Amino acid sequence: MALIKKPVTGMKDILPEEMKIREYLMSVIRDTYAGYGFSSIETPCVEHIENLLSKQGGDNEKLIFKIMKRGDKLDLGGAKEENDLADSGLRYDLTLPLARYYSNNSASLPSPFKALQIGSVWRADRPQKGRFRQFTQCDIDILGEAGNIAEIELILATTQALSRICPGKRFEVRVNDRRILKGMADWAGFAEEDVPAALIILDKMDKIGIGGVKAELKEYGFSEESAEKYTALLGELGSDAAAVERLPEQTGGCVAQEVSENLCEIMRTVDACRSSGFGLVFDPTLVRGMGYYTGTIFEVSMEGFSGSVAGGGRYDRMIGKFTGSDTPACGFSIGFERIITILSDSGFRVPEEAEKTAFLYEKNIGAERLKEILEEAERLRAQSGHKVLVAKMNKNKKFQKEQLAAEGYGEFREFYREALKQ
Amino acid sequence: MALIKKPVTGMKDILPEEMKIREYLMSVIRDTYAGYGFSSIETPCVEHIENLLSKQGGDNEKLIFKIMKRGDKLDLGGAKEENDLADSGLRYDLTLPLARYYSNNSASLPSPFKALQIGSVWRADRPQKGRFRQFTQCDIDILGEAGNIAEIELILATTQALSRICPGKRFEVRVNDRRILKGMADWAGFAEEDVPAALIILDKMDKIGIGGVKAELKEYGFSEESAEKYTALLGELGSDAAAVERLPEQTGGCVAQEVSENLCEIMRTVDACRSSGFGLVFDPTLVRGMGYYTGTIFEVSMEGFSGSVAGGGRYDRMIGKFTGSDTPACGFSIGFERIITILSDSGFRVPEEAEKTAFLYEKNIGAERLKEILEEAERLRAQSGHKVLVAKMNKNKKFQKEQLAAEGYGEFREFYREALKQ
Repeated sequence: MALIKKPVTGMKDILPEEMKIREYLMSVIRDTYAGYGFSSIETPCVEHIENLLSKQGGDNEKLIFKIMKRGDKLDLGGAKEENDLADSGLRYDLTLPLARYYSNNSASLPSPFKALQIGSVWRADRPQKGRFRQFTQCDIDILGEAGNIAEIELILATTQALSRICPGKRFEVRVNDRRILKGMADWAGFAEEDVPAALIILDKMDKIGIGGVKAELKEYGFSEESAEKYTALLGELGSDAAAVERLPEQTGGCVAQEVSENLCEIMRTVDACRSSGFGLVFDPTLVRGMGYYTGTIFEVSMEGFSGSVAGGGRYDRMIGKFTGSDTPACGFSIGFERIITILSDSGFRVPEEAEKTAFLYEKNIGAERLKEILEEAERLRAQSGHKVLVAKMNKNKKFQKEQLAAEGYGEFREFYREALKQ
Repeated sequence: MALIKKPVTGMKDILPEEMKIREYLMSVIRDTYAGYGFSSIETPCVEHIENLLSKQGGDNEKLIFKIMKRGDKLDLGGAKEENDLADSGLRYDLTLPLARYYSNNSASLPSPFKALQIGSVWRADRPQKGRFRQFTQCDIDILGEAGNIAEIELILATTQALSRICPGKRFEVRVNDRRILKGMADWAGFAEEDVPAALIILDKMDKIGIGGVKAELKEYGFSEESAEKYTALLGELGSDAAAVERLPEQTGGCVAQEVSENLCEIMRTVDACRSSGFGLVFDPTLVRGMGYYTGTIFEVSMEGFSGSVAGGGRYDRMIGKFTGSDTPACGFSIGFERIITILSDSGFRVPEEAEKTAFLYEKNIGAERLKEILEEAERLRAQSGHKVLVAKMNKNKKFQKEQLAAEGYGEFREFYREALKQ
């Protein structure tokens, strides 16, 4: 029986054209982040099943590709449930493995540690257009830094990277703080245990608007008064640092002074230091799904693209799950696949660095002549740095040259059996 | 309960220092291969279980990390054996996925297609020093080219890459042909069905010597005469192209004229064209384990390192397993992890391209002062291309600077609360 040609469901073969864009993006991103002192690291793609199922991954935990135990450890007869058969799984993000990595290696790492991780992650999501089960994430994180210089540097570096890889595209960074979300909900009269449910509704703001949020809050069973109070405050808040500054007073102290000051400082410092142009706004409706965030959260939207192209925040309590004592941590992740989509859709082409020359030789040219051609190709590579492709001439030479021209070959040389005909 | 800090058994966290070497190597390798017209591609890390178990992977098939079916497809009660529970697994090499990729995408690819693939593979091998269950392979392959220009270009490109990444290290390329192995065995009188067993013994030559091979052949039950005849021929063969040229006559035509001519041409052309210095020899004892090879095979050994650092060969019948019609194919793989070991052991350091400056600021320096420092860092990055790390001064500043110097920071600037003290 013939083997299966298609990739496994939801995963894809990457063709040379897309690979070029991917490699170019990665090198610009690496360069940019290295400029800010971030160090590349790598964690295994396979992670302990216990860590993957530890409630640090929200809904992603339902989407794990689980890896079966091997040898004697696999007890088919004795297994009562799925997890008895698995000892590991493919990572669904880069944050949990990073927390493990830091816990395991902190003695060998500088403090604070500025990490850059670019790698594949896997989620057994329902396949759909533009969404794959294996995709690349690109994260920077600062571990061991409690001060807001972490947030400031993450925003400066990420926006710098975005403006280099998407030149001419306008984008906006929206910031908020989990403690502001909680403070505003307290002030509006939501009970502590109801806050998560309220935030899930708030998170739909971009889809259903402020009226929709109010309606859903009431529908869910929250009091008329709380829903009104909450949405009224949301409606009258501004989006600049001054709006953040006013929050403690507006909420009768439910949003703490230090929380407000912290976010103001981040916004004002980023505003003063940035070398690239982008919008920076306070967005009191920004929630971000993951349960592990403890403070500042941020997200980037780009013109012409719905949804976010980057996001992150502070998660000061994840590393403690490994070590027993909390370590401050903050990260920002670029949605690598979304950037690829944006660039591909806009006809982006990678700037070629080297000249590309194709040597086309006649079929059955003979070993002696071929040797001369290959020698000439080696010389050209060594002397001029040209990329040189040596290829047999096709019957349809015109079409072959057009194809090669599309791949960036700008110069052609033809070789025939008789040197004179060259 | 605390989460698990160590990586899963046999896999490793890669620290910044090693990552630097890895990224440097990959970029030199990519550059070199691009110079020969190879195009980067990527296949998913996850492959169909049917493909992985299709006998294209030799012993590696016993070492597959299998991925469990999900949802309704996972039938715990009905599963009679392991493979009823798995629908996919992690790839154990890059060759099988490449053959699938080519079969799936050949309509969109040039012919012949020159592919470069750098990626992780996984094998559930018994963990041991220097051997990991996730490791990187780095393969170039030429698909759709039946002529020996494929072998010639693969050897030229791979040796060029090796001489760039291991400058000053001497290495030797050994070549052979599966059809020569078969022809010599025929001539010595081994029955066709016994050839694989004889080759397994021959493959031990580097460990047990020619005497050991003779003894094992007899011990296995081969006739005294065949064992003598075979080892006598091995003993008198030279290692240059002329030795290959004599084979058809020496073996009474058991090694075909065209097979001998083909390998001679490869050796003589590579000799004439190579721009880097390395040994190139015919090695009639070179076998290479994988069953899929059909013609030329090659391997590279490097001084000071036992075992091979690169290997490959022609496998003209794998793609046909997917498409139903054979496509010529030939590949060469660099043992990426071995090169890393060789370089790390010899104290290799990556050449730094950009100047690295560290800005150290006093604790509690205040938001206003910190803003000035960050602005200055952005200016320096933009103007001079310096890499600039902004970090809080540690109590033990001397040690902090020593650590940073080891990371390549050559310039330090210190910032204090009072600008005057700078």
